[in-house]
Order: sequence, then C-alpha cells, then structure tokens
Amino acid sequence: MREITGQGSHQALRRDRFTLPDGIIYLDGNSLGALPAAAPDRVARTVAAEWGVDLITSWNRHDWIGLPQRIGARIAALVGARDDEVVACDSTSINLFKLLAAALAARPGRRTILTEEGNFPTDLYMAEGLAALTGATLRAVPAGAIEEALGDDVAVLALTHVDYRSARRHDMAALTAAAHRAGALALWDLSHSAGAIAVDLNGAKADLAVGCGYKYLNGGPGAPAFLYVRRDLQDGLANPLSGWMGHAAPFAFAPTYAPAQGISRFLTGTPPVIAMAALEAGLATFDGIDMRAIEAQSALLSETFITAVEERCPALALASPRDPAARGSHVVFAHADAYPIMQALIARGVIGDVREPDLLRFGFAPLYNSVDEVAAAAAVLADIMDSRAYDTPAYRRRAAVI
Amino acid sequence: MREITGQGSHQALRRDRFTLPDGIIYLDGNSLGALPAAAPDRVARTVAAEWGVDLITSWNRHDWIGLPQRIGARIAALVGARDDEVVACDSTSINLFKLLAAALAARPGRRTILTEEGNFPTDLYMAEGLAALTGATLRAVPAGAIEEALGDDVAVLALTHVDYRSARRHDMAALTAAAHRAGALALWDLSHSAGAIAVDLNGAKADLAVGCGYKYLNGGPGAPAFLYVRRDLQDGLANPLSGWMGHAAPFAFAPTYAPAQGISRFLTGTPPVIAMAALEAGLATFDGIDMRAIEAQSALLSETFITAVEERCPALALASPRDPAARGSHVVFAHADAYPIMQALIARGVIGDVREPDLLRFGFAPLYNSVDEVAAAAAVLADIMDSRAYDTPAYRRRAAVI
Repeated sequence: MREITGQGSHQALRRDRFTLPDGIIYLDGNSLGALPAAAPDRVARTVAAEWGVDLITSWNRHDWIGLPQRIGARIAALVGARDDEVVACDSTSINLFKLLAAALAARPGRRTILTEEGNFPTDLYMAEGLAALTGATLRAVPAGAIEEALGDDVAVLALTHVDYRSARRHDMAALTAAAHRAGALALWDLSHSAGAIAVDLNGAKADLAVGCGYKYLNGGPGAPAFLYVRRDLQDGLANPLSGWMGHAAPFAFAPTYAPAQGISRFLTGTPPVIAMAALEAGLATFDGIDMRAIEAQSALLSETFITAVEERCPALALASPRDPAARGSHVVFAHADAYPIMQALIARGVIGDVREPDLLRFGFAPLYNSVDEVAAAAAVLADIMDSRAYDTPAYRRRAAVI
Repeated sequence: MREITGQGSHQALRRDRFTLPDGIIYLDGNSLGALPAAAPDRVARTVAAEWGVDLITSWNRHDWIGLPQRIGARIAALVGARDDEVVACDSTSINLFKLLAAALAARPGRRTILTEEGNFPTDLYMAEGLAALTGATLRAVPAGAIEEALGDDVAVLALTHVDYRSARRHDMAALTAAAHRAGALALWDLSHSAGAIAVDLNGAKADLAVGCGYKYLNGGPGAPAFLYVRRDLQDGLANPLSGWMGHAAPFAFAPTYAPAQGISRFLTGTPPVIAMAALEAGLATFDGIDMRAIEAQSALLSETFITAVEERCPALALASPRDPAARGSHVVFAHADAYPIMQALIARGVIGDVREPDLLRFGFAPLYNSVDEVAAAAAVLADIMDSRAYDTPAYRRRAAVI
C-alpha cells in the first residue's frame, strides 16, 4: 500500500461518541449516519420528561421554539457560515424549493434555474415542480458546460457540492463567482459534504444552501434538513412556503403574513421536536473537532480504500476523482455486478450501498471510521471478488430500497 | 349542575394508555396531545435497535419506507377515509400548500382560493404565499358569506373544520356540496377535529384534507402531519412539491419526475422515521375505539365544563357555540384578563391556553380526560375568579409561546 499523505488519524476521530454494532464495518454514513451514543438518552428525555411531564409548557421551558435556530447555529459552524445564517427545518427537498423560488423572485426578468445533468434526482424534481408552477425553466447541462450556460436569463445556479454517485466535488468558490458574474445567485446542496469535508460557504461567497441532517450530521433517519441564506440577502428574499413559524409574530395570530427578520423567515411549520433532539445529539458528535481534521481524515480513509482496492481488485474500476481534493467523503467503483457484490459484502458485515446500474458506493465518516476498518473492508471485497461469492441468485434479488 | 345528555363515559375512555404527571389537569390536548404510555419504548426501539443496530438496512427490514402509507391508513380510519387515501408527511402547512396548488391546477381558468376570515393563520399565510407565487387570488370572507362567494372563479374552497378559537364546527357535507355546485374542490383542515370528534370525509364527499399529528392524534411535539386526497382524484392531481418520495420509482434515480400512482405521489422528502414512530404510538391509543364514542365523550366533557363555568363564573362569557354538535372538542371563554387568569390556572395545575386578546381555551381529549377532571378544573377556575388570584404582575408577563 502506498504511503498516505495528509494529517488524518489511523484511528477514527471520535469512535467513542457512537454506538455501532459489533462485527460490522459501516461504510454507509453518507446515506444514514451512525447512532450517536448520546442520542438514545437525549431523545428519551425529550419524549418522557419534556413531552410527557412538562407538556405544552416545554415550548418555553425547554426552548422547543428555538430549536430551528439553535440547531442551525451548530450546523453553521460545520459549513463555514455565521450562527444566524442557518436554520434546521423540513426536508432538503422542501428547503430547496423555498430557496429556488426565493431566488427566482429576487431576479425579476430572469426565468431560468440552471443546474447540472445528473444532479441528485430530488433536486431536479423539485426544480421541475417549481418550474411547472411558476412558468420558470429548468435547464440541466453537463458539468463542463455550466459556465457557458450562465446567460442573462439565469436567476439561480443550483448545484450539489459533492455528487451523490461519483463524489466529484465542485469548486464552490469558482462556480459561485461565475454565477455572480452572470448576475445569478448560487445555491449549493451540501447533502453529501456537510460534516464530511471542509465547507466554507462564507469564504466562497455562496448565496444559498441546503443540506441533509441524516447523513454525515448523524441526525437519524429522516432527520430535519437545513438551509442557509447569506446574512445580507435574508431580508430581501421571500419564502414562498410562508407558514406561521416564519412570521414576524407567530403567536399574534395576525390575519396576514409578515415575514420575520433574518433567517427565521425561511421556517414554515411547527418544528419536529423529537427529530430535532436526535439531530442535536448528532451535531454534538462534532464538538471540539476542527473541520480541517475532518477533511484530512476523510482523505486518509478514502485514499487508503482506493489504494487497497485498486491493488487487489483489478475488475473494479474507480469511478470517483483520484485527487482527494476533488472528491467528497465517499468513493464509487464500477462493476456490472455491483448489486450482488454489495449483497455479498453486507452478508460479510461490510455495509455500503449501490447506485444503479453499476456503482458500488462506500462512504467514510471521519468521526467513526478508522483506517483499519477501511483496510479490512477492502480485504473482504477482494476476497469476494476473487471467490466470486457474489454470484448467486439470492444476492441478485432487489429489495425495495437500495 | 344540569344533567348531561349523551352516551359518554364519566371516566376517560382510555386513560391507561397515557402517561400524565400527577397533580395536573391537562386541558391542552388540542394544542399538544399527552404522551402515550407506549411511546417511549416505541421511540427507544426505533432509535437504539432500528437505527443503531440495523442502520441503513432498516429501510427494508423495518419497512421505514412504508411509514407514510402505513400511518396514513391508521389516520384514515379516524377521519372517514379509505386506507389508501391518506399519507402522513411534512407539516400541515406544507401539505396545505401541496393540495391548494394541486386544486388550482385541476381547475384551469379558475384562479381564486376561497377561505374564511379568521381561518387558522398558517392556512391563510400558506395560501397567500401560493397566490404570490402563481398569480392566484386568495379571498377570505366571513363564514356567513361563503356560499354566496362561491363564484365561477373559485378553484378551491379551503376551510378549517373546527375553528381554533371558537371551536365552531362547519357543516362539512353542506359546504362541500356547495363548493361542488359551484364547480370548485373542497379542502378541509382537520387539525382541530381529527381524533376528537367524528369526521366523515368520504360521507361528506370531501375532495382534499390536511391535518395535524400533534394535537388529538397524540403524535408528539411537531409530529408529522397528514393529507387526504379522495381516491378518484388522486391520479388526476399533481403535487407541486414533487420530491423523490412521490416519484413512481424513487430508487431508480431517474433524471425526470414521474409521479407515483395513488396517494404516494403527494409525498416529497425522506420520511422522518423517529417522529413517525412516535406518531404511530399516538395513533395506537385509538385502537378498538369507535369514533362515535369519541364524539359522545367529547360532548359530555365540554358540556360538563360549560355548565359548571357558567354557573360559577359569571364574569366569563362563553365564546363557543352552545350546541355540542356545532362545536369541536374545545371551548373558549372570553375575559379581558384571559392571560393572567390562565397563568393562575397553570400555577394551580390546570393547563389550558390563551388565544389573544381575550380567550381562555380549554381542550377536552376524549381518550384521557374525565368528567371529574373537567369539573375539578372548573372549580379551580371559579376559585381563581372569586379570589382574583390572577391579578398579579407575574401572571401578566408574557412568555415567548402562548
């Protein structure tokens, strides 16, 4: 194995902050983060003590009403934003809709949402729905054609920072600058980067962003998502999903909408308190850790894995960028039998996932995955490839969710 | 106290299914339902065993992916709908937006959303936001003017079944029929009726409905909401928040949106699994209970309370309909000092809430409130009124959420 450069740790950075079952190597934190050790108690307290005992008074007593902003501030620290630029709320899909619509309204006369072919499907679908509703146009171009497609009809450039399949990482600062030169806003989906690599929204001068709470943020299945609006833009943008939690005075029950000042105007409905408690526990796993350490560990883990697999599995073709600075925290290898190979891996305790038709995907969570683990996973994969243990009808049978 | 008619029970119907703290009388289940006794274990299992141990495989193994439909079917049974007409998802606000937009698109040439002045604020705000986005018109008229306002530009009549302040109950069948005569769709917000009174969406021929999971459904703070679309309308309506969970094949990751058949097309983002687990426990508190028993118990409780308060508190004016068939499951009394009176009640262990400027609101949850409790609450209220114990600066100080 060639020498790994960088400053990552051979050990996971904070394995002690997670509960993982014995006998598995979990390389799917890019899809569902592992359980923080503190989450069960945190959730149980919210359910039994806050809901069960303090009941309705908990909105004040336990500051349930402040959860979107309080958790937003924690996320802000992980993505290079200021405390008051992020709120936790709704799903990534819903948040994307809000910010795309706000961007269109902020660029009157411009009617195009520009995105990339192969962007995460729900991002494309939500933009399609918004376009159908408003008469806007969704235009998807290949990654290499984005800059030239930034014409004077583009209101917003909406991209995912790290591609969910290839892990290719866009240059956020360069593409944001290109959008700005064209008079457009730049919106970034951080679902596959927040918590896994160093993200610097402010440094890149990004206008808008959304992201997922249940992947590297370890917020639990279907955790609340988040959204970011740069501070100077907040009071000039309108949330089309203008629910009561985004109102300037929600409990005045006024008959007409008046947006809150600042980031709170991008809230909509009542915060999901129990889910927020789990997400808060997930975010606490990052306490005291510099995002540069996360980035270094991510690179060390993925480099270790790529090197080992390429040495031992000649039938697998790396389908991620080779330069770690151009990747997120997962890697994909292509093989026509990706699906049964992954089932064979799962049967051996190595959990990754598949993106059809032919990608084996492995995610590396810097907080809880170690170099030893990824090396062991590569060894299991090599054994399965050598033995063709994956080549059985049982492993070829598709499940509902893959 | 005058004799109470009806067939309700002197005892709560299912107090044993809830955990309530000693020493309080909880009359705010219309705002946040009490903790189901089974909810802590159900949530803990989802967190520790499903998330913590089975991790990503739980989407299949524990059918997380089927939660919106499975929980929707449970809600359907409480609101007079068929199993495949309801899904649990998102917030009430978001679901209202989806269905209002779908209704506008289904009535081309008609551009008006008709509603009632004084409808719940977030319903008004969401409709305002949709109107601003699409060029539609939101028209709010007094309740008595709804039928005459059903002109040929109305695409959808959107009403809340039970008013959040007065508890006045609309005649769902009559107003739905009036909407249909005018060529409009009828959408009902069931937030203050689902789980508290008998609701018959199918019997009323209602087209669309939304509702809240955290009030009488006992789903926990900020629980997922629900939406209903009558079966024959489903495949003709488009969800504008067209996220991947509403796609015909979410895990095919196709580049363009194709809606699922049936109610599933109204889903958007990833289901909030932990919150769904709590909601499922909340809905299980209704197992084996006929909604007519719920309705009778609700009437008995509210009648008992009204009678006692009117006898003993002459300064309080009933601001709810007197006929229980014209009410939901809460009642309001007006008094200029409503806020400090409620604080004095809470200090004595009677928990209701206030709707500004002058309404004391008391909710009666048929599953866990008893006649003895509401009689005792009325006695405490009478004592506070007689002694003017509420008239202190401490009780007049407003909290953030009221």
